[in-house]
Amino acid sequence: MRTQVAIIGSGPSGLLLGQLLSDAGVDNIILERSSKAHVLERIRAGVLEEGTCRLLDQAGAGERMHREGLPHDGFDLTFDGKRHRIDLRDLTGGRRVMVYGQTEVTKDLMDRREATGGKTFYEAADVEPHDFAGERPCLTFRHGGVEHRLDCDFIAGCDGYHGASRKAVPKDAIRLFERVYPFGWLGVIADVPPVNHELIYSNHPRGFALCSMRSHTRSRYYVQVALDEKVEDWSDERFWDEIRRRLPQGTAEAMTTGPSIEKSIAPLRSFVAEPMRFGRMFLVGDAAHIVPPTGAKGLNLAASDVHYLFEGLREFYSEGSSAGVDVYSARALSRVWKAERFSWWMTSLMHLFPDNGDFGQRIQEAELEYLVGSRAASTALAENYVGLPY
Amino acid sequence: MRTQVAIIGSGPSGLLLGQLLSDAGVDNIILERSSKAHVLERIRAGVLEEGTCRLLDQAGAGERMHREGLPHDGFDLTFDGKRHRIDLRDLTGGRRVMVYGQTEVTKDLMDRREATGGKTFYEAADVEPHDFAGERPCLTFRHGGVEHRLDCDFIAGCDGYHGASRKAVPKDAIRLFERVYPFGWLGVIADVPPVNHELIYSNHPRGFALCSMRSHTRSRYYVQVALDEKVEDWSDERFWDEIRRRLPQGTAEAMTTGPSIEKSIAPLRSFVAEPMRFGRMFLVGDAAHIVPPTGAKGLNLAASDVHYLFEGLREFYSEGSSAGVDVYSARALSRVWKAERFSWWMTSLMHLFPDNGDFGQRIQEAELEYLVGSRAASTALAENYVGLPY
Repeated sequence: MRTQVAIIGSGPSGLLLGQLLSDAGVDNIILERSSKAHVLERIRAGVLEEGTCRLLDQAGAGERMHREGLPHDGFDLTFDGKRHRIDLRDLTGGRRVMVYGQTEVTKDLMDRREATGGKTFYEAADVEPHDFAGERPCLTFRHGGVEHRLDCDFIAGCDGYHGASRKAVPKDAIRLFERVYPFGWLGVIADVPPVNHELIYSNHPRGFALCSMRSHTRSRYYVQVALDEKVEDWSDERFWDEIRRRLPQGTAEAMTTGPSIEKSIAPLRSFVAEPMRFGRMFLVGDAAHIVPPTGAKGLNLAASDVHYLFEGLREFYSEGSSAGVDVYSARALSRVWKAERFSWWMTSLMHLFPDNGDFGQRIQEAELEYLVGSRAASTALAENYVGLPY
Repeated sequence: MRTQVAIIGSGPSGLLLGQLLSDAGVDNIILERSSKAHVLERIRAGVLEEGTCRLLDQAGAGERMHREGLPHDGFDLTFDGKRHRIDLRDLTGGRRVMVYGQTEVTKDLMDRREATGGKTFYEAADVEPHDFAGERPCLTFRHGGVEHRLDCDFIAGCDGYHGASRKAVPKDAIRLFERVYPFGWLGVIADVPPVNHELIYSNHPRGFALCSMRSHTRSRYYVQVALDEKVEDWSDERFWDEIRRRLPQGTAEAMTTGPSIEKSIAPLRSFVAEPMRFGRMFLVGDAAHIVPPTGAKGLNLAASDVHYLFEGLREFYSEGSSAGVDVYSARALSRVWKAERFSWWMTSLMHLFPDNGDFGQRIQEAELEYLVGSRAASTALAENYVGLPY
């Protein structure tokens, strides 16, 4: 079997890259370890930057997003019993974000791939990249009990943090950067109307809380918890009590509660692998970097990686130039580190860090006071939140 | 002996407060533990905000500063081998800072106090505040072998971190916040022309460096060192070698070196005491708060404290209202915490923190890249550097 670009992983980055390539006439095959149904069960972030929306449009997969997604012109910060709005539109000269679940993005891209005849092997086992240091890379995998070999020009590793692509890189060729945070997020989904029409990020002495949503009738709420907390110990009632304690008066009382339809605890981590290119294999999205969810940069960063890689590959196939491919790692990493910085900063600003003590809590409050009082500081927050330019 | 306002400490904050009060017709006496010569030997920061300059003018002590001080319209940041200018004037709509040593400020204020007949007891031993919880506070002290008692309406504790005023407060009435940094600054003064006409703040994998100055012919240089370093181990030659290694090519070569006339190591610390008022006693400047020297906020913060306290006392004596005195602590602390936040942030951004590892170093570089590339972020830095409004 042969293709031009072999893509490992059928998450949003693999699907987006595949679609952009297909539409540009570049042949590609996606290998996905899980079943299609399983991929669609993954629940992830849901705040899209304008750049991400543009890429979905470019891939012909933006129609439902524009119809069903919720454009947000701002969000709220609460601290010290007060609530302040960050007006993204005003601060950034008209830019905004789109609330639309990652699951929906994946579904739209899958539908589009099927409609345009793109080839995907689901339940492809033991996917392994080979010979990417040279000119003729290939992948081996098992599918339906049969061993396959896929020859290609390039391999795109869109297979997430635990995927095969980064693991195939020799240890001395890659440098890893990591920060683990001393807490996790306990998240709940419930079919109740959101407490606010925009997101609320709350700094509270008991810990961070986030009021988010999937739609006008489905809410997504989070509270910071210790790493040793168990989801079984959190009844719905305990969760609602806790999140209300972390919101200002008025907001807490306005919250509609109801039975949770999903409840889980996720740890927070920052992670970057350098470089993001190894000969003819590229790492894309979570395969190369993880951000803590504060500020919702994960999916958006995967999208900007795809943009840089697609531009490089398009140039390679249409103009015979490897210039774009050669600078992929440097261009992607420059934006990655800025988003890592922002996600780390927003995480540091909004969470309770027990080791930082009283001084740390006061510094957070002073920074929040300064942030909402300074147009320059609010603008810096806003321009990162809507997404730095590609 | 009796006065309206008894001031402990003849540093810049005590002198500035005393002068503003005297000029407003409020009687005051300063008690200073050291000799006049000793006070004038203290070497401290030398970057004044415009608000500080205005207060010196208001106290009639700004003339020499305007003549001999060096107005700076910007400063440089260096990192990753590059050098970037932060254009304060452009970013803040015309504001700037004034380079003028704290020793000179103290001298000008002392001269002015003498010229206007202000009363100061130098070498006042065992100064102790009493009864400030009630309406009739007083101070006791020894001077020239004689025990004195000074009755007053108010006590202003301008006596620094180690002074008697904060120590006189009952432990359960005061809350202390502190952060100690895992490094110090090794500072050198030399009579050589500064390497640049403005300050250079350098982030380097070997540690922070700062190129500052006192005049066109006197330079003030610093390098970050470990806390266990001893000044005896640092020959001039070793110092110059080290600072040059922490500067970009071109800058390092342009540096003129020469024999040091002062060399010392100072630890870095953040400290705040809350509240800043205890009945009829007020804490002012270093008595209530310490900032690390990065960004030069220490003296400027003392000046804004003096401004708030002077306005309160003037109101008390001229209008018989205690409103301004009553809000002194809250008004001062709001600005104090913002300056503490800025000083902590600039320290965190520019120094090597061995415990932060490679991830921390990359985050610093990403923040610096973002900072110099974003007008909003540069403006936030600049507006703090020139001084937030009173």
